[in-house]
Amino acid sequence: MKLQVTQENLSKALSSVGRVASTRGTLPILSNVLLKTVGTRLSIAATNLDIAITHYIGSKVAEEGSITVPARLMQDFVGSLPGGVIDLTLEDNKLHVSTDQYNSTINGVSAEDYPVMPAIDGGVTWTISAKALKSGLQQVIGAASNDEARPVLTGVYVHSHEGKVYLVATDSYRLAEKILPASSDEINLLIPANALQDLLRIVSDHDEDVTVTHDDQQVLFKVGDVELVTRLIEGKYPDYRKLIPKDFASSATLKRSDFVNITKVSSLFARESAGSVTIRLDDATGQVSIRSVASQLGENTASADAQVTGEGTITLNSRYILDALGALGGDQVTFSFNGKLEPCVLADPAASDYLHVIMPLKS
Amino acid sequence: MKLQVTQENLSKALSSVGRVASTRGTLPILSNVLLKTVGTRLSIAATNLDIAITHYIGSKVAEEGSITVPARLMQDFVGSLPGGVIDLTLEDNKLHVSTDQYNSTINGVSAEDYPVMPAIDGGVTWTISAKALKSGLQQVIGAASNDEARPVLTGVYVHSHEGKVYLVATDSYRLAEKILPASSDEINLLIPANALQDLLRIVSDHDEDVTVTHDDQQVLFKVGDVELVTRLIEGKYPDYRKLIPKDFASSATLKRSDFVNITKVSSLFARESAGSVTIRLDDATGQVSIRSVASQLGENTASADAQVTGEGTITLNSRYILDALGALGGDQVTFSFNGKLEPCVLADPAASDYLHVIMPLKS
Repeated sequence: MKLQVTQENLSKALSSVGRVASTRGTLPILSNVLLKTVGTRLSIAATNLDIAITHYIGSKVAEEGSITVPARLMQDFVGSLPGGVIDLTLEDNKLHVSTDQYNSTINGVSAEDYPVMPAIDGGVTWTISAKALKSGLQQVIGAASNDEARPVLTGVYVHSHEGKVYLVATDSYRLAEKILPASSDEINLLIPANALQDLLRIVSDHDEDVTVTHDDQQVLFKVGDVELVTRLIEGKYPDYRKLIPKDFASSATLKRSDFVNITKVSSLFARESAGSVTIRLDDATGQVSIRSVASQLGENTASADAQVTGEGTITLNSRYILDALGALGGDQVTFSFNGKLEPCVLADPAASDYLHVIMPLKS
Repeated sequence: MKLQVTQENLSKALSSVGRVASTRGTLPILSNVLLKTVGTRLSIAATNLDIAITHYIGSKVAEEGSITVPARLMQDFVGSLPGGVIDLTLEDNKLHVSTDQYNSTINGVSAEDYPVMPAIDGGVTWTISAKALKSGLQQVIGAASNDEARPVLTGVYVHSHEGKVYLVATDSYRLAEKILPASSDEINLLIPANALQDLLRIVSDHDEDVTVTHDDQQVLFKVGDVELVTRLIEGKYPDYRKLIPKDFASSATLKRSDFVNITKVSSLFARESAGSVTIRLDDATGQVSIRSVASQLGENTASADAQVTGEGTITLNSRYILDALGALGGDQVTFSFNGKLEPCVLADPAASDYLHVIMPLKS
């Protein structure tokens, strides 16, 4: 292998695939990245056996070949080099990396020892704008669970329903649902949230279409010169639609920034009580007020003006409220619930494509 | 106690004293801050028994008084409030903090239970520009030791010598010496580096004079409306002057940014060897080159053009080189040594008030 690439391209490719290479696994070679000439391009790839990312960059290839090298060292090293042309030459599994000022030799491991990168043959293909996919994922992904005890909840449920494409995530304490600007009747995927976190990092740099191809076991995302493949989660997603209340006894619409501020201040007094704060709506005063009590430290009540219908109180985890308010766009937010034992719903009164449901705490 | 302050002033004061209040100590009250009316001002103070910081802010005092409240909660809470007037009212050791939108009660502990803040009567007083003190401290403080086994090395040695005032710090592996633009014959202080770290945070906001007052046991810094008192370290500082070499067999002057870059890249290959890199000067090629070897990962040689006198090699900890280059100002740096067993010296060829000495590693 003998070729030239630019520092800028190589550094960017190593960053986008590097996060998948892990030093914590049982297979030492998975902490390496695979470099491989493909025609006039160099492919830079890494996998953790669940997720694989491949990034293609332009290259002046004098001699074909492939090698794996330690991902972290290669990424830090190339990232520290000045911009410009880098020569890569392979001799006996040693990769020589050189520029005018720098000459280094990185000990590699034969590409033959690297796991085969997964590929999808056939399957269903659809496309969506990168921007819509990215903002939709960002609105739901925080509601997915980290608890491996219930694997289905660690995924984002991407599915079509009555012709529309939905993104849904829930950890059973809160649920987020987004309708994407795409139409299909044949999507039914449960994608690991951590793979989608990796996808978000890749999509951030691209403002074009994303091509999604999936079969029963895997899904492939193509964004520009980058490909991400991940296995799907097996299992049946809960029938979440029946959990979302439609009519409400109490509802308030207020400035989202006001709701964020009064929740943040109240959460400081809720550290002892695992974030528990009590929200009160009162249509007589036209106010939303949040109360928190820290038995030793003191107590706090914060309030904001709102358009209120009905009255009532509900006790929620302040962190979940802040997460929901962060995921919502728009200036205004509508907060609605039916008594203190049923889930509440937060939504943007100006947008019907997103809602966030939070289960109450017992109080 | 009943008074009004602005959120901006109170929040700033709580931040500057808050770092000294610790929840880790054995005396629970030391995690509180002391609020106390002093004439038409409110003093906000905290101590960890070694260091005490007091910040005075303007206040509309309706009723005098004092109380201590949890530092972290008070700081986070006031920091989260919107700008404007805050009312503070004390009732039965409960501090009511209120604005238009927010009403909170913070449970306090009587100010009588708080340790007496240390004070200095008499002693020597001198002044120095905050800017000069700050930049001088920043250049030496990183060379002080963290190892409590040798307490004198955990301090910065501030002393007068032949009419000039010096700042010195060393952890026995490297040493930094700065000459301040001040003159005196009677300064001989060993000040804990962590107290000076706190001082640096306070000084950063002030571009005026700092007044320093000290006796045998304590030193007081006054900067604007803030006072910091710290105990001094007892013991005799090493006679460091004889350790600084004056003449050199090999010397190179190069761009500081070049030296930083080649050291950073080399340090990536020096992780296995505790940062050890070998620097080579060669007057025949006019180059400084740095070589590092990671037995498993590979090896690297990086070089930069320099004005070189003599030739030789020396092995150093790359982190210490980067620290020294970070502490040096100026475009150029002169790097000088006498063989591989003696300390090397880094200095700015355009400034004679600062030098940095690094002991070599055995190689």
